[in-house]
This record gives sequence, C-alpha cells and structure tokens, in this order.
Amino acid sequence: MSGSIFGKLFTVSTWGESHGKALGVVIDGCPAGIALCQEDIQKELDRRKPGSNPFGTKRKESDTVHILSGTFEGKTTGTPISMIVYNQDHHSSDYSEIASYYRPGHADFTFEKKYGIRDYRGGGRSSGRETLCRVAAGAVAKKILSVLHIELFAYTKSIANISISQNHFNKDNITKNSLFMPDEKAAQQAEIYLKKCMAQQDSAGGVIECIVENLPVGLGETVFYKLQAVLGQALFSIGAVKGVEFGDGFSVSMTKGSENNDAFFADDFGKIQKKTNHSGGILGGMSDGSPLIFRLAFKPTPSIHKTQHTVTKDGKNIDINIKGRHDPIIVPRAVVVVEAMTAMVLVDLLFQNMISNMESIIKFYKT
Amino acid sequence: MSGSIFGKLFTVSTWGESHGKALGVVIDGCPAGIALCQEDIQKELDRRKPGSNPFGTKRKESDTVHILSGTFEGKTTGTPISMIVYNQDHHSSDYSEIASYYRPGHADFTFEKKYGIRDYRGGGRSSGRETLCRVAAGAVAKKILSVLHIELFAYTKSIANISISQNHFNKDNITKNSLFMPDEKAAQQAEIYLKKCMAQQDSAGGVIECIVENLPVGLGETVFYKLQAVLGQALFSIGAVKGVEFGDGFSVSMTKGSENNDAFFADDFGKIQKKTNHSGGILGGMSDGSPLIFRLAFKPTPSIHKTQHTVTKDGKNIDINIKGRHDPIIVPRAVVVVEAMTAMVLVDLLFQNMISNMESIIKFYKT
Amino acid sequence: MSGSIFGKLFTVSTWGESHGKALGVVIDGCPAGIALCQEDIQKELDRRKPGSNPFGTKRKESDTVHILSGTFEGKTTGTPISMIVYNQDHHSSDYSEIASYYRPGHADFTFEKKYGIRDYRGGGRSSGRETLCRVAAGAVAKKILSVLHIELFAYTKSIANISISQNHFNKDNITKNSLFMPDEKAAQQAEIYLKKCMAQQDSAGGVIECIVENLPVGLGETVFYKLQAVLGQALFSIGAVKGVEFGDGFSVSMTKGSENNDAFFADDFGKIQKKTNHSGGILGGMSDGSPLIFRLAFKPTPSIHKTQHTVTKDGKNIDINIKGRHDPIIVPRAVVVVEAMTAMVLVDLLFQNMISNMESIIKFYKT
Amino acid sequence: MSGSIFGKLFTVSTWGESHGKALGVVIDGCPAGIALCQEDIQKELDRRKPGSNPFGTKRKESDTVHILSGTFEGKTTGTPISMIVYNQDHHSSDYSEIASYYRPGHADFTFEKKYGIRDYRGGGRSSGRETLCRVAAGAVAKKILSVLHIELFAYTKSIANISISQNHFNKDNITKNSLFMPDEKAAQQAEIYLKKCMAQQDSAGGVIECIVENLPVGLGETVFYKLQAVLGQALFSIGAVKGVEFGDGFSVSMTKGSENNDAFFADDFGKIQKKTNHSGGILGGMSDGSPLIFRLAFKPTPSIHKTQHTVTKDGKNIDINIKGRHDPIIVPRAVVVVEAMTAMVLVDLLFQNMISNMESIIKFYKT
Repeated sequence: MSGSIFGKLFTVSTWGESHGKALGVVIDGCPAGIALCQEDIQKELDRRKPGSNPFGTKRKESDTVHILSGTFEGKTTGTPISMIVYNQDHHSSDYSEIASYYRPGHADFTFEKKYGIRDYRGGGRSSGRETLCRVAAGAVAKKILSVLHIELFAYTKSIANISISQNHFNKDNITKNSLFMPDEKAAQQAEIYLKKCMAQQDSAGGVIECIVENLPVGLGETVFYKLQAVLGQALFSIGAVKGVEFGDGFSVSMTKGSENNDAFFADDFGKIQKKTNHSGGILGGMSDGSPLIFRLAFKPTPSIHKTQHTVTKDGKNIDINIKGRHDPIIVPRAVVVVEAMTAMVLVDLLFQNMISNMESIIKFYKT
Repeated sequence: MSGSIFGKLFTVSTWGESHGKALGVVIDGCPAGIALCQEDIQKELDRRKPGSNPFGTKRKESDTVHILSGTFEGKTTGTPISMIVYNQDHHSSDYSEIASYYRPGHADFTFEKKYGIRDYRGGGRSSGRETLCRVAAGAVAKKILSVLHIELFAYTKSIANISISQNHFNKDNITKNSLFMPDEKAAQQAEIYLKKCMAQQDSAGGVIECIVENLPVGLGETVFYKLQAVLGQALFSIGAVKGVEFGDGFSVSMTKGSENNDAFFADDFGKIQKKTNHSGGILGGMSDGSPLIFRLAFKPTPSIHKTQHTVTKDGKNIDINIKGRHDPIIVPRAVVVVEAMTAMVLVDLLFQNMISNMESIIKFYKT
Repeated sequence: MSGSIFGKLFTVSTWGESHGKALGVVIDGCPAGIALCQEDIQKELDRRKPGSNPFGTKRKESDTVHILSGTFEGKTTGTPISMIVYNQDHHSSDYSEIASYYRPGHADFTFEKKYGIRDYRGGGRSSGRETLCRVAAGAVAKKILSVLHIELFAYTKSIANISISQNHFNKDNITKNSLFMPDEKAAQQAEIYLKKCMAQQDSAGGVIECIVENLPVGLGETVFYKLQAVLGQALFSIGAVKGVEFGDGFSVSMTKGSENNDAFFADDFGKIQKKTNHSGGILGGMSDGSPLIFRLAFKPTPSIHKTQHTVTKDGKNIDINIKGRHDPIIVPRAVVVVEAMTAMVLVDLLFQNMISNMESIIKFYKT
Repeated sequence: MSGSIFGKLFTVSTWGESHGKALGVVIDGCPAGIALCQEDIQKELDRRKPGSNPFGTKRKESDTVHILSGTFEGKTTGTPISMIVYNQDHHSSDYSEIASYYRPGHADFTFEKKYGIRDYRGGGRSSGRETLCRVAAGAVAKKILSVLHIELFAYTKSIANISISQNHFNKDNITKNSLFMPDEKAAQQAEIYLKKCMAQQDSAGGVIECIVENLPVGLGETVFYKLQAVLGQALFSIGAVKGVEFGDGFSVSMTKGSENNDAFFADDFGKIQKKTNHSGGILGGMSDGSPLIFRLAFKPTPSIHKTQHTVTKDGKNIDINIKGRHDPIIVPRAVVVVEAMTAMVLVDLLFQNMISNMESIIKFYKT
C-alpha cells in the first residue's frame, strides 16, 4: 500500500495504527528558521483528542506529542521533522469480535479483499485516530501561514438539519462551545439532537465550513493542480467526507452566468477587488484575493451500537451490535483536521508559487 | 508553472493554448500490447468538439488527432504515446480587446498576477479547449478499462433546475439527444431554457453524474490516495466544477448512521454484497464492489455577451460586452471530459493496486 | 513503461521513436518571463545532429525544432513548452532484418522480454536519437542558467587511450574541432585512431568531462537528492554511460584524508574559499562554491559492421553483420547531451533551493 | 529541505540527527503478507553499527530497532512500516567546538550557507549515522528479494591500493574478516595499512563492489529511469561516494565495440545467454539476465585528528585538530549500506516492471 505521503514540496508522511505502539508523522521539506516547540503541536492535538467534547469517544488518550528531529535550539533546521504520539488506552479486546465479520460503513471488507490481511484492532490504519498525524503536521503548516499573516479557521456549519445562522457569524464564537458551532442557539439544539441519537444508539452527520483570509493572489498551479483540485484531494482524503464544494458550490448549477460572475472593481486606493465572492476565492484555479471558502459534508459515524445486519468472513449472514467507544458524531473533532489538511495544501502551493516567475528567481540569486 | 502532469503510474502530460499552433498530450506509463488506433481517440474527441451540440461554441474545429509515437503495428509498445491536435479556426482578433481588462469569472486576473504575462488569445492555457487533451488521454484509459470489462459512463443530470427523472433511467438514452440527458422530456425543457438564456445573452450551469460498473474491490490507496481523494483532485481540476459528491453526497449530513450504513449480506452464491449503495461504491477509501457513483456541479459559462462591470489592467472601472464564440452551457461537452478524468484515475489505481499483496508479486515473477 | 519524465519542479517529458513520425519534449514548470525563441533551441540541436562530425552517422536529418506552446510574444508564459522535431531520413528497410534477432550491446533482447513487442526500426525508443529531446529541453535550462550567470561546458577528455593534456586546457578551444577535444594534437591522434576503427568496421569509446562555474553555494538536497545523486541519475540515464565520477573520482580511494580534504581559507576580501578542489565542487551533497567537475565514461558504439555472434528470436545461433548508418563513436555528439542533462538538474535544484529558508519565503511574500 | 524521501512505489522516508533523540524510517508501499520481525532488521543494523570492526568509531550504540507500525501477527499489513532507533551514547560536548568553524571535507560550510542554521552536534543530519535508516529499510527490501530468490551481496574490493585477488573470489569469505574483504591476505595487508593510518591520525578510502544474481530480465524503465540511472542516484546519495561504475566501467572507454559487446547465444536448453558480461548485467537500461555488477569509490573519512587548516564562521583562518570518535575508514561499514540502497532500488523496479505489459494486468484482474 502506498498512499500515506502527501505534498510535493512540503511533504507529509504519516504512519501508525489505532492499537499499535504509536502513531507519527514525518515532514520533509519544512524550511529552516521557523520557531517551533512541542506546545505548538500539542495545542492543536488537544483540539481533536478524544474527550475534547461530550459527543466524542470515551477512549482516554493524552495524545502527547514528541518532536524527535528537525529542530535545534527552538528552530527548524530544514531537516525532516519527526513527531510521535504513543498509544496508551487501547482496549484491543473490545475488537476481537470484529475480526470475524465486516462492519457496515467501515473499511473492514475492502481492506481484507485488497491486502488479504487486516489489523482489526480499532480499525487499524483505517481508524479516525490516523488523523492525529495530520493535525500534528498541520500545526507546523499553520505556523508557516501565521508568519505570513494568513488566517485560517473552520467550524461546524450544521449538524443533521440544524444549521448556524450566517447572519451574525462571528469567528470568535467558534470555540465558545464544544461543537465548534459559532451560534449558541443552534449549538444547544444540536446537543439535544445528539443526545437523542445516543439514546437511540445511533449517530449523526454534519457540515464543516472553512475560510482562509489574506491569501496572496495566484496560489494553485494550472490544469491538474488547481487550488480547488489539490484541496479536493486533501479534503476527500478525510475518512467520512462525502461531498466538497467551493464558494456557492452545488447551487451554482441553478444560477445564470450574469448572477454567478463576480464583477471586478478598483477601490478608492486602486486595488482590484471583487464585488461579490460566489467563486469562493478561486478564479482559474488560483486564489483570487477574496477569502477562500469551502464546505465538506460528513457522513454519520458508521460505528453504532444499534443492531445491524452484516456478513462474516465465511459468508454467514448475522446481526451485530458494535461494542467499543465511538463518537456519535465526528464533525466537531474533524474541524481541526480540516484546518490541518487545508494548511498543508496552502503551504505547499505557497512554496510552488515562488518559482512561477523568472524575475523572482533572479532576485533570489542576486542577494 | 507546473501542474500539467497527472497520475503516478499512468502519467498524462498536457500542453497547448487555445490559439497556439496545436494542443497535445503525452502518456508515459501505458502498458505494451494494447490495440490502439487513431479512431479510438477520434471518436471520443468528436463527442466534445465544438459544434457537437447547438448550445456549444460556434468555433469550427475538426479536432483531428494524430498519434505521433508509442504504437507499432497497431499496438502500444510501452513507450510514451504522444498525440497532437492542430488548431485551425482561431480568431485571435476577437480577443485583442481582452488584453486590456480582466473578464469576470475568468483566469485573466489571477494568471496575470501570478505570471506577469498572459497569452490572452482565447484564454490561452486557461481555455476549456485544454480539455481535449484530457479526452485524448482518457480515450486510451478507456481502452484499458474496456479490456478489463469495466463500464464507465457520465451524463447530464440537471441543467439549471431541470433534472432528469431517476425513476426510469436508462443509460442507452444518454446519447439520444445533444445534451446527453437521458430523459427526453427533461431534455426538451432544458433546450427551451437554454434558448431563453441565449436570447438573454446569458449562460447556464448544471450537474453531471458519473457511474462506473464492474470495478474490482480494493481500488484506492489508504489515507491520502483514497479513491474519492484521487477522483477529488481529478474532477475539481476541470475548470468550472464547484462541487463534487460521492454516493448520497451532501445529503448524508442529514441522515443517521443506521440509515446511511449499507448492510452487507451474502447472496445465494455466497458472494458478499451490499443491500444499498449510499456510499456510492466506496468504503474506507477503496472501491467496494458496488457501482461507483458521483456528481459534479458546473457553474454557468463565465463568458456572456450581457453587459458586465469590470476593471482594466490600469485599474479603470469599465463596462464590457464579451465578444467571441462561447458555449451558453458547457455541461454537455463536459460529460466526456468527466469520463476521461475518471478513466485516467481508475487506470492509475488499477495499476497501483497490483502490488498491494506479496502473493501476486510472487506469482508474477514465477511465470 | 514509465521512465520518460524527469525532474521535480522543472519537469521534462520526452517521447518519440527513431523511425516514428516525430520526436518531442514537453517542459512543465518553466517560469514565465524568459526570452525564448526557436533559434535558442536550434543552435543546441545543431551541435548534436547527425553529420555534425565525420565520425557520426550518415543519416541526414535537419532536426528542425518547432516550439508549439508555452511562449507568447517571444517570452515564456509559465505554461508547458512543447517542442517537436519531425523525422525525415529514416530508412526503416535497413532494419527489417533486426526484427528477427538480438543485436549484441543493444536493448533488443531486454526490450522484447519486458514488453513482448518491439519497434525494431532504428532501435525505436532505445535509439540515441531520443537524446535530441534532452538537448531541446537542456537548451531551455541553459537559458535559465545563463540569466543567472552560471557557466556550463563539457568536452571530450579522451578517446580510447588518447587524452587531452590538462596543462594548457582552454575552454575556448572546445569547438575548434569536430571532436570537441580542446587539444589539437590529441584531436589529430584521435582522428587517426577513429579512421582505423572505421576501416576495421569497429567502434571506439571515450570520456567526457563537464565543468560548471559560478554556481551558488547550497544546491542539492540532503540525503537522497544530493547534487551528485541527482546528477548520478541524470548522467547514467544517457545510454552508453558506464561510469561517472566527481572531482578526483575513483582515485580518491587511493588517497588519505589529509590529502583529499580541501582546506578552507578566507581570502583577502573575507570570502571563504577552498585551497584545492578534490571534491569537484560538492560538499555534503551540496555545491560548495568551487567549480563543479565530473567525468563520464562512454562505451564504444555497439552497432558495428564487423561480424558478431548472436541469437535469433527463435533461439538459433547465427553470425550477423549490422547494416545501417552508425556512429563509430558517440562521444563527440554526446557532449551536448551531457550539458543538457546537467543544465536540467541544476535548474531543478536551483528552484528547490529557493524554499530552504523561511527568511526568503517571507521576503518573497512581503513584496 | 526536501530530499529525505526515496522511491516511487517502495517509498522510504528517513529522519533523525546524529545527536538527536532518535533516528528512524518510514516505508510506504510495502506489500502485505511478508513475514517480518525485529530480528530481520536488527541483524542488518548489527552489520553497520559502531564497533562492528576495530577500524570504526568507538561510539557505543546498541542501535536497537523497534518496529512501531505496519505489521500484525508477524506479517506486513500493507500499511506504512515505521522503525525507530534511539540514540544513546552521544557526546555532544565533543562537538561544541565545531560550532564555530567549518571542518574540511564536511557539510558544515554548505549546510550553514543553505539553511542559515546548523545542528553541529555530530554533524547533525549530515552524519554517517543517518545511514542506519537506510539499512533498516534495506532489510525489508532484502526480505522481498529473498522471497523472489534474488541474491545480493557487496564486499570491500580494495582499501587504498590493496585490492582483493579476483581469481579465487568466494562470496562465503566476505564475512570471514571485519573488513568484509573476501581475500585473507589482502585483508591482513589492509589492516596493517589502516593501523599505520591511525597512527598518523589520518584516514583511508577504498572501493566496494556489489553483485546481484538471479534478477529477472527487464528491470529498469527506459530513458530517465534506467536501472543504472536509478542505482546512480541511490549509490551517489551515500555520503562519501565519489565514483560509480557498472560492468567494465571506466575501462570501456579504452576498448573497441567488438571487444566490449557481449555476444548472445542459446545454450543447450534453448535459453538465451551472454558469452561475457562486460555490460555488468544491463542492456538498454534494463537487467539482462546476467549478474548485475557495479563498484563505488569511497573517499577517506574527512574527520581526521591530524592538524588541518580551515576558517571560522567569522572568517578567521585557523588550524584545527578534530576531536571525537571517528572511523579511520568507512568502507567496511558502508558495505551493508550499499546493499541496502541496491535492495530498495531493485524492489521498486521489480514493482514498476509488473505493469509493463497489458497481458499481465489482464491476468491479475481475471483471478
């Protein structure tokens, strides 16, 4: 299996299984001279770690990160940055049963058909736990973005059919509740809904929106590596994502060109801007100076305690009740994962963008 | 600029501008021994060529393809396959005006900011004409799929708010009208709508659906190269796409786990199958044996004759009326492009999948 | 077959067979804003084209290049640069015989075993003619180097056991004879030797040396993409090369550390320099500010008219006399190929080097 | 800095500094179903670990490897294999002095110029200690080769001007002495020479030869990824290598085509073979069925205790005596590193080779 390495210049290689000894990530291609300490990584990991909200798994993991290489005297040196998180609270016995059958909505069936062998303990490599490595790498990418004054944030836009009101959206409210839903009323309704789901031994889905402000114009490479294309891969690589849309997204199929086109204008200082932002900050596959906006649809957690029908490895039809400690919804914990994947993509495209023009290359080598 | 090369093992490199001498594509990594002739490519190109439907551009191009390398005595040899299409009917004079301002909804602004230079004639490299190279490469990929008995087709699912009825969907009806809309009634309504758009000097958007049948289980590599992730990049790399969803897509965010999970069962022959296909044929990032299903939302063509506001290179606010020969809708011509990108992705993942398991490697080298 | 794409950021994709319709190359990742015309490419192609020296093949090819994309008003635009050379003087009938047997020293046997099919006409893809695409791409790379004031030149150091005298080496003498041997006396001896070879229906080998001056310090990425490693791949990818060495090369295995280490010193202007250059301009896998120096050993052309033993496809032992128009030595024509591969590598590493340090990234995005 | 990831399908990502907390490697793309335990890795690491011969550094490291992911019940699962070795005996104080000046023959100068920051402790990332990660990854690659009955071994061919006698070469004698020199007499002379070197506070170089037997025909991809080209990168990426040659190597430049060509013949069983092996097992960039043979020249260890001239960071000319525990020769410890890099390359090319031909792809997907 290949597939665990992402990025052209800022290259992230992740490894580890849910119930293995540890999980980790190696970043190859991080520039030298960035101030980086364990706390920079830890604070991001803490946002996704189990127990960060009442609707997440009850598995107890401190998810303490260790930086093993790539920094010296508090700064990156340009060499690969290796980070590791040891597993602690894995109850593999909870999973021994799974070895014999295929859980609906999970990778069990496909994994076994492809590889002929399956580490069934906690889902092995297919576990959502794998995303902690993305968050660690994303924390490094975010440091780079912040140095460049680029601001990136994601939040829960809706859970089931409960959506935040966009009218008085305020990003400072994102962290005000454990659902990362910047609308107190919607968050309360969602909590009630989720408690009902849990009582029914069921699970729920939702939508995350991500916004990036202050991006330079021109990120994204033409044709196959357009900004939305690279993000498309990155976002759909998050396990439970079933849909991604940019700007006005699917609704553009209903509009006319005259409605959907964003008119340009020069403001009083002569700066060229767009009157509207239907495009979500992308034109011709490149960032256009407006905020980058996109949404992801997450399916309900497939692990539910409710009785389900399935089949054993030997082809026997059975009814199952999945045990273990599972999130009734993964959306709130996925918010930081969305940010991480986005940050990695942007850093890579920021780097690639630097050699678009001979002029800047000449300037670099003159000094 | 990089960005014009796609694929890990079946690698496609495209080149060419709308009003340049020619456009072309090179495929590196096509196996030897596949019967391939120009007609295989031409028939696909004819499906997207201008004039293939009354709602496409009036530009006249025969789009005749020439295979310049990589075949011998009617078969691929394993060496790079180079294909070329010469431009004929380019009216660059239509575009001289564009040199001075930025068209709304187009790459003009971002391209110029990134590269400092812009081939404005017909949109240069950002023209939809670039997609003919994808269709040519896709035609080769489709040959490989057909040898493996994998069936792939796309069609127009909706134009504006006119959608086909899914109830009596029949893929044989896809080519019955020039909109590739397999529902005669919907197609007629759409035609009326599009004529109205044209009368209003405006344009329309729509949705394409793509289905792939008979895929082996296990295509897609874990974590970052999941089936939906690689498709995500490929599909979002098509110029006007603003949304992509797999299976039940965005609507899964509204459902519960117990509704969205596809139960497994063993059929009378012991074959493991899914009772439903909410997942759209993907589990754990791999094809799961059910049909692969996904949809793409296309924005309305940005080139409209209607008056629009914009700004010149010098920052002067102006009103413009775009000239030239433009499609009032690109969806029907994009159907074959969606198929092409999908075919390329599947071939690449089919190849990668062959080395998942040591057993098959041993078998290969024993013979 | 994959294998025809080279380079990470300055990516070169070549295609074409010896007796096909054409050969060509696509460069993806060339920055915008470089003055480039057909003559820039043609003058390099003319240095390698058949007939450029009396000891080359008698095949007559004008090798006229056409730039098909990627430039506008005399400058690169940042889009892929496609270049093509049509084949003219191919006598495929000369080769019909080869179809039935395997020429010693050639790719016939391995190619057929690997692919099951072989375009035997002129060696197909394995022909030395493939290198013209490298020279075309190298010409673009050289333009970039020259803008950065980096000087690159290669020359014939020896033919058989006739070597130039290093004592009065002058690079201006390289082009003074058709063997690119900057030592008139050695060149005359070599000519006599080569004529004897031809009379004996035999062929000769030789050594090329390449020197690059004025490289910035720090080119090359640590561990697997050291300067000598990337060059190692590039140089050994030239068909007949059997050995590559940097600086003092193989002879260092005989020396002691105290002899081989190059002492640093600060000159009168405080500039840090090396007293000697045993390292050939590389330290720790990176360019060290001294001239980059390396040598390549070329085997004698395998196509000789002399009687040879071999075997047919059916396994019959036979004697053969190879027909066709072959170079009794390929070294002089390979000089420009060595320069081309070197230029591509250096440009790629120059680009990669620009994102080593966060400081330069901040500076780029501030302006 | 990028550069620490190697391989297209069998992808190896290394990390770690000489005096950091640990070093490690992640393999992405190892097939499932290979029996693998820590002992498989440890026995290879033990061959290169400090103290494995009297002429190596006196640093004491157990170099105990831990497999952290990618195996389950003793077999690879197809997921990334992460391996780690913790540093124990690092005396960073020995190196504090180095912070202020540039050691001749080392990466100090270039590293600092490129990155602006340098982890000087033990050479940081440029330390030879980095190669243990290659050996660990190579151990996994060797397991794959051994399953396919491919035999790979390297040995010390010469130290300074003391060379083994090729006449009675026996690979079983390689491990009979700590210099891995399969010729007892030569080994004794070399020991005497090395002791003299050490007495003189100096160091020595040498040549390693590597042979691979039983390779299938056809490994290597045409043009840029020829077998010798990929090996060229891999071998030159080993720190102290200044020259690489295949088969008859540099001496081919002296021969004639009639001498250098290897004649084919069909043996009594109809198997096609070569009478000689001047080519070193490579034809047209692919393995040709004969043993693969190549040699690498290593420079003398640059760290010597003898007085040397150099310059401080501030540009002051000084005399230095390097302290610390250094190998007077690295050749014997590099033998296993050469094997490791070769094994990685071969595994990658074995995998790539499997999709050369449509026939085998059809066969794979039929079963």
